[in-house]
Amino acid sequence: MKNTLFGKDILSTRNITKDEASSIFRRADELREIVQTKGSTDILRGKILTALFYEPSSRTYASFISAMQRLGGGIIPLNGMTNTSVAKGETLEDTIHVFDSYGDCIVMRHPEVGTSVKAAVYAKGPVVNAGDGTGEHPTQALLDVYTIRRHFPSLQGTTVTLVGDLLNGRTVHSLIMLLALYTPSRINLVSPNELRMPEEYVAYVQKTGIRVSQTDILNDVVSTTDVLYATRVQKERFSDVKVYERLKHRYVITRDTMKLLKKDTILMHPLPRVGEISPDIDGDPRALYLREQVPNGMYVRMAVLSLILKK
Amino acid sequence: MKNTLFGKDILSTRNITKDEASSIFRRADELREIVQTKGSTDILRGKILTALFYEPSSRTYASFISAMQRLGGGIIPLNGMTNTSVAKGETLEDTIHVFDSYGDCIVMRHPEVGTSVKAAVYAKGPVVNAGDGTGEHPTQALLDVYTIRRHFPSLQGTTVTLVGDLLNGRTVHSLIMLLALYTPSRINLVSPNELRMPEEYVAYVQKTGIRVSQTDILNDVVSTTDVLYATRVQKERFSDVKVYERLKHRYVITRDTMKLLKKDTILMHPLPRVGEISPDIDGDPRALYLREQVPNGMYVRMAVLSLILKK
Amino acid sequence: MKNTLFGKDILSTRNITKDEASSIFRRADELREIVQTKGSTDILRGKILTALFYEPSSRTYASFISAMQRLGGGIIPLNGMTNTSVAKGETLEDTIHVFDSYGDCIVMRHPEVGTSVKAAVYAKGPVVNAGDGTGEHPTQALLDVYTIRRHFPSLQGTTVTLVGDLLNGRTVHSLIMLLALYTPSRINLVSPNELRMPEEYVAYVQKTGIRVSQTDILNDVVSTTDVLYATRVQKERFSDVKVYERLKHRYVITRDTMKLLKKDTILMHPLPRVGEISPDIDGDPRALYLREQVPNGMYVRMAVLSLILKK
Repeated sequence: MKNTLFGKDILSTRNITKDEASSIFRRADELREIVQTKGSTDILRGKILTALFYEPSSRTYASFISAMQRLGGGIIPLNGMTNTSVAKGETLEDTIHVFDSYGDCIVMRHPEVGTSVKAAVYAKGPVVNAGDGTGEHPTQALLDVYTIRRHFPSLQGTTVTLVGDLLNGRTVHSLIMLLALYTPSRINLVSPNELRMPEEYVAYVQKTGIRVSQTDILNDVVSTTDVLYATRVQKERFSDVKVYERLKHRYVITRDTMKLLKKDTILMHPLPRVGEISPDIDGDPRALYLREQVPNGMYVRMAVLSLILKK
Repeated sequence: MKNTLFGKDILSTRNITKDEASSIFRRADELREIVQTKGSTDILRGKILTALFYEPSSRTYASFISAMQRLGGGIIPLNGMTNTSVAKGETLEDTIHVFDSYGDCIVMRHPEVGTSVKAAVYAKGPVVNAGDGTGEHPTQALLDVYTIRRHFPSLQGTTVTLVGDLLNGRTVHSLIMLLALYTPSRINLVSPNELRMPEEYVAYVQKTGIRVSQTDILNDVVSTTDVLYATRVQKERFSDVKVYERLKHRYVITRDTMKLLKKDTILMHPLPRVGEISPDIDGDPRALYLREQVPNGMYVRMAVLSLILKK
Repeated sequence: MKNTLFGKDILSTRNITKDEASSIFRRADELREIVQTKGSTDILRGKILTALFYEPSSRTYASFISAMQRLGGGIIPLNGMTNTSVAKGETLEDTIHVFDSYGDCIVMRHPEVGTSVKAAVYAKGPVVNAGDGTGEHPTQALLDVYTIRRHFPSLQGTTVTLVGDLLNGRTVHSLIMLLALYTPSRINLVSPNELRMPEEYVAYVQKTGIRVSQTDILNDVVSTTDVLYATRVQKERFSDVKVYERLKHRYVITRDTMKLLKKDTILMHPLPRVGEISPDIDGDPRALYLREQVPNGMYVRMAVLSLILKK
């Protein structure tokens, strides 16, 4: 089968086909096996990844950096690109030309929506969006759906609930569009009124025939949910800290919440969490954020890199 | 012989046995040979080290980063982890779960005492304490004792003098406990009254039968010393800068001091130094801080990493 | 032929012979071929490069980091060495001893002129000056001349024009001395009076018989120029921001300028640019800054590293 991901930018889940997602997930399965037995492989020997993080990051940065080296490739580590050429007033276009030349692909995090899309226009090599402000974070969505499908190989007939800051949370923007490929029966969107999912994403999903409900009361929907996906209210997105304080712990998943969930429901979170999920349920077998999402992040990113960089 | 260090955390010298120290030193000898002839080896191919430095560092950071690559492994370089997930309010437990998942071991520096111990509880992979505030710095002590033993294969009958800030200096805390395994006859502790070695460490050593003397006058003990170990008074540990200014150059090793030392006495310092040792004695054959401690740091850290990561 | 660059410091173009420059350029040609077919080689397996950047950098930093890994070596990445040992008050000599010990060569950027020269005195391994304040930047000059010679294999009979901040621009200081080896007929120096090329460099070049003209009017010389090399007026070098604002866009290369240039003239810039060259001429075949200088930077740095580190 032809690898249609070769050379492709990963900017939004909107442009990932179901076949491509499947090939990423199959490759992730293979790479998990390789990492667990040998630690690394040589697939990307001779390739260099530029980790161009304008916003400092730990989790996503570390998983890409590790993934690239476990594939045999090298790294240009740039975590928190501030006082450099950019500060000297260089245009994004010039910056991208440079990194595009020194490395074979650019993984980019930036505080402004759409910057990776612009970067991809300038770069010959593939660009991976590792988070653009309140925009998207497609590899997070890929690891999320990968994690979900290891529990629900078919999503048909299931109910997925996204809860938290659905306005600013880039992971849920990417996730809802990727979920659309797998047509669960229903998606519940639970958020304060101020933090509702942007209409464009809702419309995108509804077009596929998935039923979408919006509410601000979590307890209305938990008992019928198969996948409960919680997100952080992101302090850095609020200009008024009082509004943040009022909303930040509107939804907290506790032991009581877990009692309402079905036995095979899975609980997920993109991390970092700052109080949305009580740590005393981390040991619950349904809690996947630490035990499954985190390690899957590396396997899925290895899969993405190996497919976009190698025919 | 069984490698009892495999998978073990290196948090404090308190938990390192004499057999383990010996196996580290033997391995360091072998790796020195390999580095000097070939530069690197493949022992840790497929392994990834996370260098998780909350306080920026140059020496320790660089030696671990180099050590890991000379062993064939990869790195997740995080030097000065500030504005990231941690700043977003994530718990240490969540942070550690993440890095424990992406890398095979965590080398951690943190401004607060005890953080590495907590991290080790959360991590499945081994954790190496690369300095926790005024607590410990066990790999520094290992390289120090390794350096000493290349000059004094047996420490029995010798006198070791530690001078400087013995209260806040984490390297001397780790060192005095590791020295206890090798039972020198006497340990002199020379410091201003305000900066004396914490009582728990003194008591620990005395239990082994080593005679411990405390004084604030260096000249009283230099002439009978075999190992003179000087340390920096650490500005960053003082809330009152005036106290720091008064104490910082209380002990300065000069040419005059060297005249008082025996011919085969060795002079050591963990570095960085800021005036405790006059640079005009760097060429003295007894001055080991630059010529021996620094390179030994890499060999000993290579030894530690290879033993904790490979059966 | 003997590799006279083995073990040599690259601090200034003043000390590079024409034979050495030629061997760097030949090696760059070979490595370009290798990178384009295989991505990397194993020439420097077992070697470690310390990228010791006191001033944060993106372009130069990334090109060295990538170059070293494409040669099979490892890296100690230190980009923006502030709050570390240096801040603790350590001397440069001690710092250099440390990195000289952990890695096989030091690539150093520092805000003060002459720091690399000092570092090279202390280091046993080779030191590469990657920019010392307003001093020099020899690998930039090497990549510039490499780029020029791919268009003008012999520079005899040609006219080279350097325009912009010739006082503070370290790249033009290194470049003019390296150009002297290839004896173009004439070098035009175009700058505001306040930003003229320091007299020592002018004298250096004149001694070789090259005719040097100084002017503050670019249009006087463009039509007879074969190589037009533009530079940024560097804001960070001005104490009075008003002077900077007055001078920064004194020379801007636009479509109109391009009309005045000969058909086979080449236009170069060390980057980053902040308005000196209008982006709408990037597609002009004579504009080499993005298309040729940037990628050549990596090949030439690979060549330099491979020659200084391997017999």
